[in-house]
Amino acid sequence: MQEQILSLIVDRKFQKLKQLLVEMNPTDIALILEEAEEKDLPVVFRILPKEQAAEVFSYFETDMQQFLIEKLSDTELKEVFDELFMDDTVDILEEMPANVTKRILKQTTAEKRKMINHLLAYPEDSAGSIMTTEYIDLKKTMTVDDAIDRIRQIGLQSETIDTCYVIGAHRRLLGVVTIKDLLLNQKDTILADIMDEAVISANTLDDKEEVANLFDKYDIMALPVVDTENRLVGIVTVDDAIDVLQEEATEDIEKMAAILPSDKSYFKTSVWTTFKSRIPWLLLLMISATFTGAIITSFEEKLTVLPALITFIPMLMNTAGNGGSQSSVTVIRALSLGDVEWRDIFRVVWKETRVAIVCSIVLSVVNFIKMILVDHMIFNTFDAGKYMAEIVVVSLTLFFTVFIAKIVGAILPMLAKKCKLDPAVMASPFITTIVDAVALIVYFNIAVSVLKI
Amino acid sequence: MQEQILSLIVDRKFQKLKQLLVEMNPTDIALILEEAEEKDLPVVFRILPKEQAAEVFSYFETDMQQFLIEKLSDTELKEVFDELFMDDTVDILEEMPANVTKRILKQTTAEKRKMINHLLAYPEDSAGSIMTTEYIDLKKTMTVDDAIDRIRQIGLQSETIDTCYVIGAHRRLLGVVTIKDLLLNQKDTILADIMDEAVISANTLDDKEEVANLFDKYDIMALPVVDTENRLVGIVTVDDAIDVLQEEATEDIEKMAAILPSDKSYFKTSVWTTFKSRIPWLLLLMISATFTGAIITSFEEKLTVLPALITFIPMLMNTAGNGGSQSSVTVIRALSLGDVEWRDIFRVVWKETRVAIVCSIVLSVVNFIKMILVDHMIFNTFDAGKYMAEIVVVSLTLFFTVFIAKIVGAILPMLAKKCKLDPAVMASPFITTIVDAVALIVYFNIAVSVLKI
Repeated sequence: MQEQILSLIVDRKFQKLKQLLVEMNPTDIALILEEAEEKDLPVVFRILPKEQAAEVFSYFETDMQQFLIEKLSDTELKEVFDELFMDDTVDILEEMPANVTKRILKQTTAEKRKMINHLLAYPEDSAGSIMTTEYIDLKKTMTVDDAIDRIRQIGLQSETIDTCYVIGAHRRLLGVVTIKDLLLNQKDTILADIMDEAVISANTLDDKEEVANLFDKYDIMALPVVDTENRLVGIVTVDDAIDVLQEEATEDIEKMAAILPSDKSYFKTSVWTTFKSRIPWLLLLMISATFTGAIITSFEEKLTVLPALITFIPMLMNTAGNGGSQSSVTVIRALSLGDVEWRDIFRVVWKETRVAIVCSIVLSVVNFIKMILVDHMIFNTFDAGKYMAEIVVVSLTLFFTVFIAKIVGAILPMLAKKCKLDPAVMASPFITTIVDAVALIVYFNIAVSVLKI
Repeated sequence: MQEQILSLIVDRKFQKLKQLLVEMNPTDIALILEEAEEKDLPVVFRILPKEQAAEVFSYFETDMQQFLIEKLSDTELKEVFDELFMDDTVDILEEMPANVTKRILKQTTAEKRKMINHLLAYPEDSAGSIMTTEYIDLKKTMTVDDAIDRIRQIGLQSETIDTCYVIGAHRRLLGVVTIKDLLLNQKDTILADIMDEAVISANTLDDKEEVANLFDKYDIMALPVVDTENRLVGIVTVDDAIDVLQEEATEDIEKMAAILPSDKSYFKTSVWTTFKSRIPWLLLLMISATFTGAIITSFEEKLTVLPALITFIPMLMNTAGNGGSQSSVTVIRALSLGDVEWRDIFRVVWKETRVAIVCSIVLSVVNFIKMILVDHMIFNTFDAGKYMAEIVVVSLTLFFTVFIAKIVGAILPMLAKKCKLDPAVMASPFITTIVDAVALIVYFNIAVSVLKI
């Protein structure tokens, strides 16, 4: 399909192309056109019917949108933006340079311009920034028939007609009515009798991640957004909520891997941008490893006396690091999903303590057996004369460091949340650096006291 | 609210309790009742209206569902399951022990039982396993008015009426019509003229994660599921798609942190289950660290000659590990989101190579400067007589290991995908183990050749 369309574009067979495209889904058209040559874009874009063109436009990547905007005439631009929903319009404008934004705003009506500016003013991660203003508002005194009439009137401009909002004086939100309620009730039923007053709603300034989590929790299709005086100002639709959930999961994953989050897909991110998102944490963590180096240096003499101790440094550091990142990542995800909050700190620590004890015991016992059977008897890795004391040192270190690592791993993300920092940065790389230092200190101190070196 | 309801239960004030509960959202009721005493559950459950009771039931955790099923009479059980949608029914039955399932199935009609057994037979992660069979099917010869009549007839049993499905002979899927299309077109319009034939659909055996990704990609509310002969057999609704997306993100995150995934929330998972999900990888990674130990042992003599080399082992291993996990995690997430596929392997390697070169150069140069300025001049960490050669060794090692780590980190998840393994297990802990060995080998070999030890 993709090849066929691209070759129709190259061959300038626009009649045939149009027949194919009008049957297609806007997402697919946008994806295919991204592969076409940039110079062909305007002419292909112009053969699409207005409504479809606007939809395709909203799925383009920012650079293509900007290119097209520059090529379209003022009238064409107006047509596209007239068809777009308010949330898509705002999303696009947020990414454009000032002169492009200015040109687009010039093509809109004064009323729409005012609304756009209003929406652009909401903080970046707020519910207000992802909501749209096209929805069906009804009055509680309306009958089902009145409501359906109103949907027929304004439905085309509404992003969803699945859920309608019943408002009172000063646009205060009173309840919701679904289209199912309307179709399944008698035509003369009054909305006040069938509307659901247990409305789940969000405030304009609520964090968009929390808002998106409400869709997951309550299985809703759209969420009304109200201002501080409970006046309905917009709705968030489920497709935008999914985008937020996916973005936030990606962001968490990136932060956990010591990457500064970006909001573009893999191949859309340039080498330079990828580099810039990775190097800060790499540098920071590299430099903070100076401390582990300093710890080793301070025990250097003792290590020279008993060099076999060096053998186990990587194993001890890694096992503790893995143990710590397991608990930190578990807690970070639970915080993101809203399963755990700051007030649960004692329950979390109590649970992690028990898990940590069992994990530490198992690891330390397995290590003990492994060192006797495998390292000593098979590989003969270390001096037979001293091996029992060494095995005890390594196993004890393992017990204490895994235990400490797991508790630190669980507490740090909770503390970050409490201090309004992002818990996700407290994941593996950060924990590893702390845990490495802990592991070395514990190891050397146990070694000194047990082995008397 | 929660306290008020719980105390009303304790005080047996059921009249007042009922008034409160009927106004509430089923999700919230379920969450509050989970905090109540188990013995009070049946009586509270019985005061809810039938439809609401069934909804609340579907939001309970499995252990509470099982407890209630055992307490309810056959008639009550039948009432609950009559109200439930097919996908929720199947979800519940999948978690129940055989005798409970048997008792529930006994209360359903022969037809429904057949359907349930059919749905239970789909593989665990397939589209078939998450679809429901309650949807609106229409014929293309119907008028808009006919369609609305049919929705009024069967709408109550349908999970969504937002999107309706137009089917032909043998239930073959021909197109979709949204409720918006129906309300905004003339009553005598024939569905064939307004239906959208560019239907996005899934096959019953498609992976549920891929199906859920379609909701994100196409911004749809429901997805028709067809069998191998394009016959419509069910639909997946957006709420279930969100659940799948969230579960898969959590699973990926857990696997990346070397945890076996579980599908329960943090506090619902017992200490024993949490332990079992964490210990296998910890053990495996601990034992595989034997190799890093063996590498160090084989260079032990040389390390005794120049113990300052030991100081930099943790920094080298960690920095390479972090670099590798950055690229592996980025590629894993891109694979999950469908941004990258196996056929992109060369583009991925090419991009990562360029990022790796820049990162390696910057890290190695910064390290060079840092070792001269900080370690040598301020802390005086190592022997001044030999320091320049050592600095060169460490910086060169850093360059090569970060480079190798990043490339290995990018390739392994792609290979895993190609071999139909889960790319997520190729994340940080696994990469770290490989990269540690690489770092040590590179380090010691460069040290031997540059320092002539």
